[in-house]
Amino acid sequence: MGTTQLESVPEPKYWHLKTVIGEALDSEFSVGEVLPNERELAARFGVARATLRQALEQLELEGRLQRRRGVGTTVAPPRVGVDVSTAQAQWPGAGDETWEPVDCALADPPPAVARLLELDRSAGRPVHTVRRLRVSHGQAVAAEQLYVPAATVPDLTAIDAPSGPARARSVLRELQRLTLDGQDRAVELGSARADDAKELDRLPGAPVLLVTTRYLAGGRTAAVSVATYRADTCRLTFGDAGDFGIAS
Amino acid sequence: MGTTQLESVPEPKYWHLKTVIGEALDSEFSVGEVLPNERELAARFGVARATLRQALEQLELEGRLQRRRGVGTTVAPPRVGVDVSTAQAQWPGAGDETWEPVDCALADPPPAVARLLELDRSAGRPVHTVRRLRVSHGQAVAAEQLYVPAATVPDLTAIDAPSGPARARSVLRELQRLTLDGQDRAVELGSARADDAKELDRLPGAPVLLVTTRYLAGGRTAAVSVATYRADTCRLTFGDAGDFGIAS
Repeated sequence: MGTTQLESVPEPKYWHLKTVIGEALDSEFSVGEVLPNERELAARFGVARATLRQALEQLELEGRLQRRRGVGTTVAPPRVGVDVSTAQAQWPGAGDETWEPVDCALADPPPAVARLLELDRSAGRPVHTVRRLRVSHGQAVAAEQLYVPAATVPDLTAIDAPSGPARARSVLRELQRLTLDGQDRAVELGSARADDAKELDRLPGAPVLLVTTRYLAGGRTAAVSVATYRADTCRLTFGDAGDFGIAS
Repeated sequence: MGTTQLESVPEPKYWHLKTVIGEALDSEFSVGEVLPNERELAARFGVARATLRQALEQLELEGRLQRRRGVGTTVAPPRVGVDVSTAQAQWPGAGDETWEPVDCALADPPPAVARLLELDRSAGRPVHTVRRLRVSHGQAVAAEQLYVPAATVPDLTAIDAPSGPARARSVLRELQRLTLDGQDRAVELGSARADDAKELDRLPGAPVLLVTTRYLAGGRTAAVSVATYRADTCRLTFGDAGDFGIAS
């Protein structure tokens, strides 16, 4: 989508090269195919290695190429649409099988999350931090941390394990007993944390899409979710998207 | 949001450095302040230039830093929430003053847009391509191309100018006469085209958030919008976001 030209604007050399390589990908390469190495590509297109690298970085940002350690640069499959619409507000884990609870621990939330939860340094910490993975087409596409202050789930029993998937499910169950007033959601660019990167088969610091969700109950923020989506393979879809082309 | 640790995972050196610098930004620097040069920073933190650069790139992805030609690296202001929710389906330009029409031309849409518009190479081209800018807090935060096939606006008169803002408004007016059945929206990572980068005061190829919207009327895709949002300064908000913290 990012390669058309409405009016002619002077473009840097690597940008033109990106377009040329993009067309070559369409016509000569198939998904998953490994590209020739940088030296060969630079020679073929008659450009400096630095220029070639810039063009390849563009194509990676646009999801056309994937660079993987030990494999090299491969032609990426089309991005997969992942629905993140908030059409009907519902608690995490309520009737969606897309997310798998993998862990739960008491942790001190990052400052930005603490602000959203309106926790001050003195009170309400640490919070239950549920770790979930979202799998789509057999691939982990997102890793989430769901922050639930103890005050939100006062009836959470201490009987079961203090951590692990079972604990995560208990916290989600307690959440679902509350009336959800609404939720809001924001998407922004971020960089993959080391632990998320590992789960998502990316390198630490790779560009990711961060989806932050606030769950509102009892007139306050009852929980905050921060989900890290693979930016290379995912397109986040909203609204009536479900049954249309963009979403699939 | 991307810097917390739920469980301890071995992290690359630059990642730890990123956290350390992030804390220094909070405590020692103010928004807009120019950072010392890389040599000084590398010396201060006792790391190699390459490691420092990786850390700075992370902080840039996370919107903590902005690198601008001729200015250097400055501390970025908090990202601004920009509402892109599709709560009520609406034609572009219908009762929103957030977008300013700047141009209109007949253009051949990029292949991905042509597919969404279900145009084949032979028919329905070129399409009216409306160029709009979204300004927030006095800054251009997004540049849009709205693709409207001639078949969607058959009554568009040829009387007024063939291009320019006036033409853009005519196309939008014609669109708004149609009944909008619905719309879907997708967000993905992209790289800034040269002309968008210029409008958005970014360098060509900078990471951006691409928001693609399909407008559905008469049982088909009547128009497609591709909006390029600044990823460094914008957080895209959805759902009930309007009146909550994430959105502002």
